[in-house]
Amino acid sequence: MADCIFCRIIRGELPCAKVYEDEFVIGFLDINPINPGHTLVLPKRHYGTLFEISQDDLHACAAASQKIATAVYKAVKASGLNLFQNNYRAAGQLIDHIHFHLVPRFPRDMVLSSWPGKPCPQAELDNILEKIRAELAIGE
Amino acid sequence: MADCIFCRIIRGELPCAKVYEDEFVIGFLDINPINPGHTLVLPKRHYGTLFEISQDDLHACAAASQKIATAVYKAVKASGLNLFQNNYRAAGQLIDHIHFHLVPRFPRDMVLSSWPGKPCPQAELDNILEKIRAELAIGE
Repeated sequence: MADCIFCRIIRGELPCAKVYEDEFVIGFLDINPINPGHTLVLPKRHYGTLFEISQDDLHACAAASQKIATAVYKAVKASGLNLFQNNYRAAGQLIDHIHFHLVPRFPRDMVLSSWPGKPCPQAELDNILEKIRAELAIGE
Repeated sequence: MADCIFCRIIRGELPCAKVYEDEFVIGFLDINPINPGHTLVLPKRHYGTLFEISQDDLHACAAASQKIATAVYKAVKASGLNLFQNNYRAAGQLIDHIHFHLVPRFPRDMVLSSWPGKPCPQAELDNILEKIRAELAIGE
């Protein structure tokens, strides 16, 4: 896509700190890292979100993410690693070209430490379950 | 694995609100959801983290996550969706059986809203880049 910043990086029109490249995928360091070694992995072909990416490109991204995550984890001597993939503004997506964040984690690094899960009444779970199953049945 | 809580769910020894199941993957609602529709997707075979899962099972999880994410997003009329996968305690992993979180997001839901990325000096990026590339070369 002409004015997509990630497509411009892929075409070599903008620089990046490139970690990895194959036929389908590119990986480079995030210029605003949450922690040292924070890397982005994305398909060369332009898709907005997880909802649009082809299965082949999704699998290529998954395989590359695993390989790169292993290298990043060792390279920065991390104690943990988060994989994040954000879809749409409400989920924090800033660039509309699907990308996977690999964020190395360190003991007491105090980043991304909020996990606001709360117990949910069974009746509410059952109600939501029914709606999701109905959507999956439509999608088949 | 005998005492893994997710393996016990997969074997049917513990209940779950099951959204999806195929030969390789299961998906069920998180009992401590961050938002309504928060779903976990995991391989039936036991692996601890992203660093150990087989490529076949990783691809099965990726394909199922895409399918389930689409259904969840529609079912709860979300405005966005995060995919998270946490490895080791330092990254917030609580159950040592790899799992992907699908978290629907809503405007101003005020969850997971911290994204503590900060600009990084080029020399530091270059230094880290070199270390990651070296690890990728070793891994080949």
